[in-house]
Amino acid sequence: MCGVDVFNARNEDGRPCYLAFYYYRICGNGLYPGDLTFGDRIVVDTLVCDSGRLSVFTAHRIRRDDGSPDTPFDPVELHGSPRPGCLYVENLNVWLTRSEESSNVGLIRAAPVGFDQRALAPLTEAYSPRALCARARDGGAFPDPAPGPWLPVSAGHTREQEVDAVHDVNGVGLLYFASFFSLAESAVLRQWRERGLDARSYLDLCLLDARICYLGNADVDTTLAVSATVRRSAARARHERCDVSVRDQATGRTIAVAAFEHLLPLPQQRPRP
Amino acid sequence: MCGVDVFNARNEDGRPCYLAFYYYRICGNGLYPGDLTFGDRIVVDTLVCDSGRLSVFTAHRIRRDDGSPDTPFDPVELHGSPRPGCLYVENLNVWLTRSEESSNVGLIRAAPVGFDQRALAPLTEAYSPRALCARARDGGAFPDPAPGPWLPVSAGHTREQEVDAVHDVNGVGLLYFASFFSLAESAVLRQWRERGLDARSYLDLCLLDARICYLGNADVDTTLAVSATVRRSAARARHERCDVSVRDQATGRTIAVAAFEHLLPLPQQRPRP
Repeated sequence: MCGVDVFNARNEDGRPCYLAFYYYRICGNGLYPGDLTFGDRIVVDTLVCDSGRLSVFTAHRIRRDDGSPDTPFDPVELHGSPRPGCLYVENLNVWLTRSEESSNVGLIRAAPVGFDQRALAPLTEAYSPRALCARARDGGAFPDPAPGPWLPVSAGHTREQEVDAVHDVNGVGLLYFASFFSLAESAVLRQWRERGLDARSYLDLCLLDARICYLGNADVDTTLAVSATVRRSAARARHERCDVSVRDQATGRTIAVAAFEHLLPLPQQRPRP
Repeated sequence: MCGVDVFNARNEDGRPCYLAFYYYRICGNGLYPGDLTFGDRIVVDTLVCDSGRLSVFTAHRIRRDDGSPDTPFDPVELHGSPRPGCLYVENLNVWLTRSEESSNVGLIRAAPVGFDQRALAPLTEAYSPRALCARARDGGAFPDPAPGPWLPVSAGHTREQEVDAVHDVNGVGLLYFASFFSLAESAVLRQWRERGLDARSYLDLCLLDARICYLGNADVDTTLAVSATVRRSAARARHERCDVSVRDQATGRTIAVAAFEHLLPLPQQRPRP
């Protein structure tokens, strides 16, 4: 890919470089993560764009393989005019290397030798998630989506938990990107249960939108402080939003910021927006 | 596969049938799970055998793509004469259906309409894991491997934990087979830490052999009792074995039985048998 083997990339000092997730968004428009199951046939269209020397932008459009026409997929559709019946995944990955060989703290940006992204289609800055991630990093949370306001549902909640050597570590010893999703979703579930609602009804929530910005990594045995706050939309019935942050408990360093938007089910019914 | 779409299989009553894991074994012979990482090129040879109307036997042989010769792969090699530098995975899957539509308790064996396994190579009963699974089921643990004896390392330990709606449920609402591995491995890790050892050194254990027999399933919100006991080999230095059982805490019903065999690292060294 772009002149390098992504699994064996190294910088000028010979250190391994990893194309790590920095931003991950899943957003539905008539098709949501819980709608798909084993054996469903889907069509996936993928965009990969030039996002500079140190990162790669990727987006996927997923839809049922129902004979509906193939249409071009571009960043304009992703951000302004989503096609009905589609689920979108948007990623910004950044090239990272360890600044100390045995630590996951202090990762630094470093493009590998030979990486040349210029053959990729350029990504207009307006469609890049960089500015949004900078706001999430600086504010400790993603900005509120329109229309507001968003009203408190319950008190915020923080739980400490250790990085789990069984679940959370990938083949190169870094916290696995999907583990951040499960840390964050577990915090959403805890909030749900603290409101007296059961895990079965949690599975009936429709996940409209999920974003996560990966600001750092952590070593095995680190204690993480995972905080979650739920609010509801004043303007749209049954819309809730949960903001999650993951911090290194000892240092306060923010490792990830996430936001989930759910549609609550009608009684006895799977929600459909 | 064998006349049915495995993802859309139904029995005569029209109920969905799932080809669920019943036995899963990973066993190394000079190549172990922790040896592989991103970008490694491997060769996988797969065997699928006729194991009767209600099940399917599958085995995989994994080795590095290092130019070593292709050789035939058969159950004799799997059970008696493993090839050096290979990692083996062995599975018995059984056709299950729910006896009650909304429950994961009381799953029953049921082959789907149209399933015809007779084109597959037959599996000699001596190479089937059925008898071993029956012993694990009846005894609540896998039998001890030779050579014995296996001596206690620490007191057994039981922890109660809920089925996690975020991690543990697959696309059809059943506890995901890989979640049993992570439940069982978490119990192994807890035992490790109770001995005063850290999570980083746990990652240096060499997993020689892992087996799990899936005897049942459970609903979201079920409390599981996960028990683990560690013993060491009197005959072979640094060999340890951890037996794990997963039970429904309320009913005592055994859901899974697992056994892990580890080689402990030499100080400051990744173990190699």
